[in-house]
Amino acid sequence: MNRPSGRAPDQLRQIRITRNYTKHAEGSVLVEFGDTKVICTVSIENGVPRFLKGQGQGWLTAEYGMLPRATGERNQREASRGKQGGRTLEIQRLIGRSLRAALDMSKLGEITLYVDCDVIQADGGTRTASITGAMVALVDALRVLKKRGGLKGGDPLKQLISAVSVGIYKGEPVLDLDYLEDSAAETDLNVVMTDSGGFIEVQGTAEGEPFHPEALAAMLDLARKGMAELVELQRAALAD
Amino acid sequence: MNRPSGRAPDQLRQIRITRNYTKHAEGSVLVEFGDTKVICTVSIENGVPRFLKGQGQGWLTAEYGMLPRATGERNQREASRGKQGGRTLEIQRLIGRSLRAALDMSKLGEITLYVDCDVIQADGGTRTASITGAMVALVDALRVLKKRGGLKGGDPLKQLISAVSVGIYKGEPVLDLDYLEDSAAETDLNVVMTDSGGFIEVQGTAEGEPFHPEALAAMLDLARKGMAELVELQRAALAD
Amino acid sequence: MNRPSGRAPDQLRQIRITRNYTKHAEGSVLVEFGDTKVICTVSIENGVPRFLKGQGQGWLTAEYGMLPRATGERNQREASRGKQGGRTLEIQRLIGRSLRAALDMSKLGEITLYVDCDVIQADGGTRTASITGAMVALVDALRVLKKRGGLKGGDPLKQLISAVSVGIYKGEPVLDLDYLEDSAAETDLNVVMTDSGGFIEVQGTAEGEPFHPEALAAMLDLARKGMAELVELQRAALAD
Amino acid sequence: MNRPSGRAPDQLRQIRITRNYTKHAEGSVLVEFGDTKVICTVSIENGVPRFLKGQGQGWLTAEYGMLPRATGERNQREASRGKQGGRTLEIQRLIGRSLRAALDMSKLGEITLYVDCDVIQADGGTRTASITGAMVALVDALRVLKKRGGLKGGDPLKQLISAVSVGIYKGEPVLDLDYLEDSAAETDLNVVMTDSGGFIEVQGTAEGEPFHPEALAAMLDLARKGMAELVELQRAALAD
Amino acid sequence: MNRPSGRAPDQLRQIRITRNYTKHAEGSVLVEFGDTKVICTVSIENGVPRFLKGQGQGWLTAEYGMLPRATGERNQREASRGKQGGRTLEIQRLIGRSLRAALDMSKLGEITLYVDCDVIQADGGTRTASITGAMVALVDALRVLKKRGGLKGGDPLKQLISAVSVGIYKGEPVLDLDYLEDSAAETDLNVVMTDSGGFIEVQGTAEGEPFHPEALAAMLDLARKGMAELVELQRAALAD
Amino acid sequence: MNRPSGRAPDQLRQIRITRNYTKHAEGSVLVEFGDTKVICTVSIENGVPRFLKGQGQGWLTAEYGMLPRATGERNQREASRGKQGGRTLEIQRLIGRSLRAALDMSKLGEITLYVDCDVIQADGGTRTASITGAMVALVDALRVLKKRGGLKGGDPLKQLISAVSVGIYKGEPVLDLDYLEDSAAETDLNVVMTDSGGFIEVQGTAEGEPFHPEALAAMLDLARKGMAELVELQRAALAD
Repeated sequence: MNRPSGRAPDQLRQIRITRNYTKHAEGSVLVEFGDTKVICTVSIENGVPRFLKGQGQGWLTAEYGMLPRATGERNQREASRGKQGGRTLEIQRLIGRSLRAALDMSKLGEITLYVDCDVIQADGGTRTASITGAMVALVDALRVLKKRGGLKGGDPLKQLISAVSVGIYKGEPVLDLDYLEDSAAETDLNVVMTDSGGFIEVQGTAEGEPFHPEALAAMLDLARKGMAELVELQRAALAD
Repeated sequence: MNRPSGRAPDQLRQIRITRNYTKHAEGSVLVEFGDTKVICTVSIENGVPRFLKGQGQGWLTAEYGMLPRATGERNQREASRGKQGGRTLEIQRLIGRSLRAALDMSKLGEITLYVDCDVIQADGGTRTASITGAMVALVDALRVLKKRGGLKGGDPLKQLISAVSVGIYKGEPVLDLDYLEDSAAETDLNVVMTDSGGFIEVQGTAEGEPFHPEALAAMLDLARKGMAELVELQRAALAD
Repeated sequence: MNRPSGRAPDQLRQIRITRNYTKHAEGSVLVEFGDTKVICTVSIENGVPRFLKGQGQGWLTAEYGMLPRATGERNQREASRGKQGGRTLEIQRLIGRSLRAALDMSKLGEITLYVDCDVIQADGGTRTASITGAMVALVDALRVLKKRGGLKGGDPLKQLISAVSVGIYKGEPVLDLDYLEDSAAETDLNVVMTDSGGFIEVQGTAEGEPFHPEALAAMLDLARKGMAELVELQRAALAD
Repeated sequence: MNRPSGRAPDQLRQIRITRNYTKHAEGSVLVEFGDTKVICTVSIENGVPRFLKGQGQGWLTAEYGMLPRATGERNQREASRGKQGGRTLEIQRLIGRSLRAALDMSKLGEITLYVDCDVIQADGGTRTASITGAMVALVDALRVLKKRGGLKGGDPLKQLISAVSVGIYKGEPVLDLDYLEDSAAETDLNVVMTDSGGFIEVQGTAEGEPFHPEALAAMLDLARKGMAELVELQRAALAD
Repeated sequence: MNRPSGRAPDQLRQIRITRNYTKHAEGSVLVEFGDTKVICTVSIENGVPRFLKGQGQGWLTAEYGMLPRATGERNQREASRGKQGGRTLEIQRLIGRSLRAALDMSKLGEITLYVDCDVIQADGGTRTASITGAMVALVDALRVLKKRGGLKGGDPLKQLISAVSVGIYKGEPVLDLDYLEDSAAETDLNVVMTDSGGFIEVQGTAEGEPFHPEALAAMLDLARKGMAELVELQRAALAD
Repeated sequence: MNRPSGRAPDQLRQIRITRNYTKHAEGSVLVEFGDTKVICTVSIENGVPRFLKGQGQGWLTAEYGMLPRATGERNQREASRGKQGGRTLEIQRLIGRSLRAALDMSKLGEITLYVDCDVIQADGGTRTASITGAMVALVDALRVLKKRGGLKGGDPLKQLISAVSVGIYKGEPVLDLDYLEDSAAETDLNVVMTDSGGFIEVQGTAEGEPFHPEALAAMLDLARKGMAELVELQRAALAD
């Protein structure tokens, strides 16, 4: 089998995690999965949404966007269309759920962490790159919060979270699909995991033919392998 | 283990599929999964979305809604809020993708099938009930289309699609969660399958603790068992 | 004269009022005027709109919607269009004004009653069916409120309200127009009355030729006759 | 009985109709019912809405607005709120229906007449003043259309339309309510009539107690009297 | 050179400032620059925007609109389009900034002044006419505020503000462009000044060819001359 | 005088122009004015807006956005607020007008150039950096267009456009204000010029005290000086 990129089936693209990418946010990361590039920032604000008020716990919420020309053809700017599309809302709900699994909200105090993932160049896998990069920005923001004296209840970080896509491309399971593979894949599976190997989210879609339990198992194996590498890369970035 | 409903872990709720529920739509079904009740209609319109024009094939799109008081507490009407929420958009995208897997679009001609799933009473599992019920309404609409002489290219129906939720409740895998189970489940998995047992969608979310491959396998087994029953119920309804 | 349905000019369609139609709402009625079917729910919420705060009185507000395929041709879903149309707003304002006439707001306490009327099948007269059905759901909600100990100021129910349409069809006044009659009528009059025969709303529109006082008087007579029957049906339903 | 303005029960406010009030529109009228002042313009545009295309007939549509400080307290500008309120939509639908009754659309050709009624000062009765004033602007626009050679099918003007409000104030029927009367009236009735005395619209609302057939008859009598004067004023204005 | 209106290059159009134009607002002016006519009202409301709360100072904000047929061709009503256009927002931001320069906010107390400028007839220069007219309405509103005992901290009025457009038309600098000139001008400059001759805003745009410092200087000279006359007219109007 | 950055009054920040910053767009530039960083892309699309159809000429339109945390405090994402703010619309109108001055539209053919300026880090002067950077991306896009054989009518590029802000800071004119200066400046002036020294836009605002002709002249001199350097930097970047 030939992947368009020449990668082995279980090979990630080149991953780069650049911390402190912009200067204002409490956490700011540029994450690159090959040609997919996402700016992930985490902002700390006092207060929580209404449904949590007075419970002494914190919250994390995520938003996702794409620059209009992050893709091969220009997409209309959502701000000028006047609403976010279904795909955007679906992705930002996924990012939020995934990163909340990293935290013990009761130790945050009544603050809200805003995660913003903005794709400046897209080449497949933007949602999984967003989660993986934003996780690093989140740790940086928690460090800022601690320095400001804001974490009196102990460390809210329970575990690192990372994410990767896997799929069946030309009949074979492959790891970390780029755009060319993604648009031709028979099956597409996004996996979000903890650093100890548990699943947080598993979202698989048959693009043409249905898939079967064996294919699912093979894809999940690949995801686990990729995730182990991603967690190492996150840890290395955070150790710098 | 005790399910709140007293059901066995692998037991579906009482499923009812009532065809011709309203009189105007080409396909109209009331589907009930226990106390979850959804009106599913399929409407036939000439023409296709712009991105498909001139290709001689058809399209299917889905919309989902809930009456404001379908739930325990009243939700604000999305029409008066001025937009559909993220959950609504996520669900209607899932319904659309799932039902498109039932059809060979090239045999439809340039028509659009609008699937509307409106929840009149919610008790958990509204998205999977919607898919299962709308599948039956879709077959009815295809029959109308055929009668009108609209299917000259052959039968576009490739397979029946059905859907069910499974989860881990109090540490044990259970089939077809109702609201009480759903809100307490550790893991929630929505599965969409073909009548020959292939997966179309697998969407699993850890609500608290991460889940592991064995739990996933156990849930998928339950889903397969439930789906076999659902397909029988769909066939029986269509045979009336 | 022949009405398309074969009814006598002063004959209502078959009216059915089914209480407790869905399980969550404090009041829930399915009302049927022939083939027109509307789910009417009444929900109780604490608090009142800002303009009433601190005055010790309650409020009632209504919303109206139609499932997209309640009609012969599918209408675009208002939630996905991003706004409610003029017809919808006009009808829900009418429903709200009409039902507020049933209540002494000063005896409700600072609560808001949300009336939701959702048409699942339309065949003419949806606004008048909505008012007639929602009145019954409103009484049920007041009974719930009383059971919860919420009506210490006495019974807020002043009177029953019902509504019916009348019109001039093929030159003759007829009661309770169905869709075929409605779309061909020269004049269309919606009347809302109290159970003691007073008018709450009278809304008449000439569709083609202007109408004259004698026609108006004849239509109002028919309305009064119909209303007497409707009040009996409401009372019978509430007595079950 | 004392009306706040000292008028007799059957006395209109001072009515002024100023034609050619602004210079760009094909018809432009400032109409004053006492302190209620409305600018009514009629604009001619080629083409008709989609549902009428190719049928060789014209259309008339109306929009209504209020300057934010037309009233005693400033209202939020609808353009900045991002939507027109229910009251606005209800009124502009009424204006449109009423003025369409003045025309034989088949003689207009495929053009659209846009009627804009903008209240610059409000003191009760803005919708009826709008209809009465816009009728005059509509005749002016038809004259322009004729001069431009646009009315080859004959005169589309069937009749003049005018409108007035009547009500029960302190137990007595009164004509042409101003704001003080309107806000204290027991019943409020808007009547739209043709110049030959036929009804186009009758919209009555009980504000507190229900009203009875005799009160309705008395109000309609007053309306007819007022309308005869209004038609004279319209004719006089058009004769200048 | 011939201006279409026959005016001298440094000649203003006929300016009229009519105070108390409508009766409800605390300040209400009809301002006319030739055929450009704008209703300017100023409304006083208690409270300030959130970002100013508790600071003991006031605020002024402006909104701008045009009646749909204020112009040669009808523009779609912004309220029915559901949003204000970029031109509208740009102009109302300019009006607000300009008029805030007239006031010492710390002497207003926690109130908000709403300035509404609504163009009823447009013939070029609507934004500068709006500022010039609203300035007069603002003084009237301050007088009302003082009468109500609301200005205990001293007079908040620092200076009068006025505005005018200048431009290069057929190669020559001209003052106060009307629509015919504006649409053919090579350069268009809006100037806002204080009554002592300082600049508040200078906004120049090359429509075709770039302009040069000498042209800018010549236009600013014209603006200064026009402004001196406008301030006199404002003072005369306020002295009546 | 001390500028917070230690720069001389007539000294630009460090300017960097990185071409081909992202891979999909026909022109893509990262422009940096010190810590202000903007991604500018130019996309080519066939067709023109409706008002230009059939005239054989092209069009250029611009959109502007900021990542939510480009600034010291997070701003709500405009896509999730559902509309672009007044400041955004004002800036993107300025960018569009400025860049259209660079082109002879009649030589473009019926294509539209979409300019997207997205601020990833803000430190003052984002609109002028956007114009300066987008100008370079525009030249790149024209080169692509030419390579594709799309410029048969000759070179549409008339001149280079650049922009810079100047202001009065602590009483002295300074060039290229950063955020600290901008928020404390008495006067703020944005200038857009051609490479031969003509003005395209001059937009000056007094933040507190009015400014006078001498200050304006001094600022324009500084702007001219800065612009000469900016044009050199644009040319150097384009020569690489």
